[in-house]
Amino acid sequence: MASNVTMDTIVSLCKRRGFVFPSSEIYGGFGSTYDYGPLGVELLRNVRNLWWRAMVQEREDVVGLEASILGPSAVWEASGHVSNFTDPLVDCKNCRMRWREDHLLEGNYEAEYGATKRDAAGKLLCPNCGGELTDPRKFNMMFKTFVGVVEDTASVAYLRPETAQGMFYNFSNVLGSMRRKLPFGIAQVGKSFRNEITPGNFVFRTREFEQMEMEFFVKPGSDDDWHSYWIEERFQWYLKYGIKKENLRIRPHTKDELSFYSKATSDVEYEFPWGWGELEGIANRTNYDLTQHAKHSGKDLSYFDEETKEHIVPYVIEPAAGATRTALTFLIDAYAEEPDKDETRIVLHLHPAIAPVKVAVLPLSKKEPLVNLSKEVAKKLRRKWVVQYDESQSIGKRYRRQDEIGTPFCITVDFQSLEDNAVTIRDRDTMEQIRVPIAELSSMLEGKLALD
Amino acid sequence: MASNVTMDTIVSLCKRRGFVFPSSEIYGGFGSTYDYGPLGVELLRNVRNLWWRAMVQEREDVVGLEASILGPSAVWEASGHVSNFTDPLVDCKNCRMRWREDHLLEGNYEAEYGATKRDAAGKLLCPNCGGELTDPRKFNMMFKTFVGVVEDTASVAYLRPETAQGMFYNFSNVLGSMRRKLPFGIAQVGKSFRNEITPGNFVFRTREFEQMEMEFFVKPGSDDDWHSYWIEERFQWYLKYGIKKENLRIRPHTKDELSFYSKATSDVEYEFPWGWGELEGIANRTNYDLTQHAKHSGKDLSYFDEETKEHIVPYVIEPAAGATRTALTFLIDAYAEEPDKDETRIVLHLHPAIAPVKVAVLPLSKKEPLVNLSKEVAKKLRRKWVVQYDESQSIGKRYRRQDEIGTPFCITVDFQSLEDNAVTIRDRDTMEQIRVPIAELSSMLEGKLALD
Repeated sequence: MASNVTMDTIVSLCKRRGFVFPSSEIYGGFGSTYDYGPLGVELLRNVRNLWWRAMVQEREDVVGLEASILGPSAVWEASGHVSNFTDPLVDCKNCRMRWREDHLLEGNYEAEYGATKRDAAGKLLCPNCGGELTDPRKFNMMFKTFVGVVEDTASVAYLRPETAQGMFYNFSNVLGSMRRKLPFGIAQVGKSFRNEITPGNFVFRTREFEQMEMEFFVKPGSDDDWHSYWIEERFQWYLKYGIKKENLRIRPHTKDELSFYSKATSDVEYEFPWGWGELEGIANRTNYDLTQHAKHSGKDLSYFDEETKEHIVPYVIEPAAGATRTALTFLIDAYAEEPDKDETRIVLHLHPAIAPVKVAVLPLSKKEPLVNLSKEVAKKLRRKWVVQYDESQSIGKRYRRQDEIGTPFCITVDFQSLEDNAVTIRDRDTMEQIRVPIAELSSMLEGKLALD
Repeated sequence: MASNVTMDTIVSLCKRRGFVFPSSEIYGGFGSTYDYGPLGVELLRNVRNLWWRAMVQEREDVVGLEASILGPSAVWEASGHVSNFTDPLVDCKNCRMRWREDHLLEGNYEAEYGATKRDAAGKLLCPNCGGELTDPRKFNMMFKTFVGVVEDTASVAYLRPETAQGMFYNFSNVLGSMRRKLPFGIAQVGKSFRNEITPGNFVFRTREFEQMEMEFFVKPGSDDDWHSYWIEERFQWYLKYGIKKENLRIRPHTKDELSFYSKATSDVEYEFPWGWGELEGIANRTNYDLTQHAKHSGKDLSYFDEETKEHIVPYVIEPAAGATRTALTFLIDAYAEEPDKDETRIVLHLHPAIAPVKVAVLPLSKKEPLVNLSKEVAKKLRRKWVVQYDESQSIGKRYRRQDEIGTPFCITVDFQSLEDNAVTIRDRDTMEQIRVPIAELSSMLEGKLALD
């Protein structure tokens, strides 16, 4: 069962506590574009780093890559995006509003615009005014710009709609420079851009977003097994970092919804407040991309198999996750309102490795010796972790502030600390407090804040 | 004195060993755009993370931010980029080639195109054909695109030419959500885009690049002191991570070259193979940006000073570095060719915190028990560091390979290891070898690979 939190609550928390701000807000915002505030950045950094750790650093069979965002037409013609990465749009001949025909057909607009309208013959009508609609035409979702200044030689460039192609057109470069044998993967974290017609649900679907994609190259024939392997591997990753199992599911795509390049795809889905939504897709892209790039570039992108002495074009399994979407999911899943004495406390039960702030240091009074000792403790801990120091208002209010942003541990420095060189550590989840010598703080926290 | 390495040598090493590839290379490349290969990504990650650690994590007065790349015109009109972020272009009336007039005036084109040409009256002529040039016109360096699909409501968007503006238009959001008092800073790492007319020198000047910028908000009157503080702080950062002092200098801008928003700017410069070039600019941007955004947005972006009970518009000190440029600098500065016995070894003397691979594990033979033990050792170390495992060719060749990519430590597993549970650690710089029990490897390396 999904958490009962509403998106309004999450959006408001994100703004109030510095996770996510609407971009260019002082100018009235900019079409579902968002900026990540101080806590949002730390959250995102944790998501990226833990993904990278699991997908690259800890594996002997995966290496990293960061390709450029701007790319020439040739890449996107080869990949099929120029001709196929389109949505079918229809215009209302009366009110001039524009719609995605596939959404009208699926009735996806019903929640927002009321039921799909049709005329007596069953033909679609404008959901806004009931007017007649034009025939559909294809609208390409890639953002286009021009590179170079000499007009006749300036080149069209596209902002990449996915990071994946960078791994394909660099396949030979990576193979050669890293002395790799199949199976091996190339992983990338970075921004992609899609001119979505219907962005929405806060940072879930935005025109600018951040992906975490890995292309795992395997021998043809072993692709089905590796597909299963990566579906399970990725499902476990979300569980490891605390997403509740009952809010996660694996859903294989039906034949109809498969991308044109895919033999099989399974999504890891999460039950968001608005329903089940994709967290990550794990696709069997076959040898489609390498074959296309070989054809369009005229370069040999095959792999020489030392064992069989044959040239083969590897198959590719692609676990493709969204960094921003994953960060949002951690927030939603961790959110709780809990009774505490006569009040209700808001708390994010984030996994310590995901929590943006690891430790808060709170002096029990603003008296100088306490403040000095507290700042000294905070300074030492900052060498290893993100630490907040907070001296204002009652200790109860300060605990609440830290609970609300998911800080796993609060360290209270009191007058006794000046004598016994010890402090109190409060656990976010149990609210239990224990006394710890300052000299042992760092090693104790290291155990509690371990990444695994 | 600058290192004697040539750019050709660096470019070749970067390609061969997986640091940097020309982007879309199989399609003939794409106008000085580059992709970062497996080692380049790890190098970049280290540069970013060490910058973030020094500028955000370890400081109590700086927080992070990640703003969107796409932004509306309003932001760039307020910042002055729409009207001022331009280059003066002249066209040849004869051969149609286009030039930057300021470069022709400075004679910067001499190396590439021969001396600037002028007619009898001293007027500039086309360096290519000697033809007459048009009057200069302004060319804006921002990349433009369109967001949204309904043509009459689609908005012009710009790819940000600097990350800085995100910190300015989010000033109030950060102030409010993070309960900050002056002085405090907002830091950001991210990509920026400039339609440079003359990109060049490998990844030094590219149209797509990555910045590491921090806006430090201070009380007016304290700005000169903070400016000096940050110049020194940033200069020391490069030294800390191993850039040779004789290759670095601080150069204050002359009045003529100051940006329109700056009261004073000093560059940290490095002596590249082609001469001195900017690594980082530390600018006093005054209250220009906040004032402009307040004026254009109609929002109050002032700060209420509790002590004086006055509303003030903070001044801003901005240390602005380039991540990709910094990574290149580390490579150039670390490069050495050294005599070793009868041969020459190529070695990157990178600071251990900067080195992309920290440890290589090398079994002395491919026999199964040695390979198994080596892989076990590598697996354990991978939990903390980027590790390469290499079993092919002679141990000498494998040392060379690791030297060339700057791996600080090679661990050799030999037959004796199977009996004494110890391995040999070879130091990249001294080439000295010591025997260490496997059980002590991790804690020993932790000391040697410490970030400070």
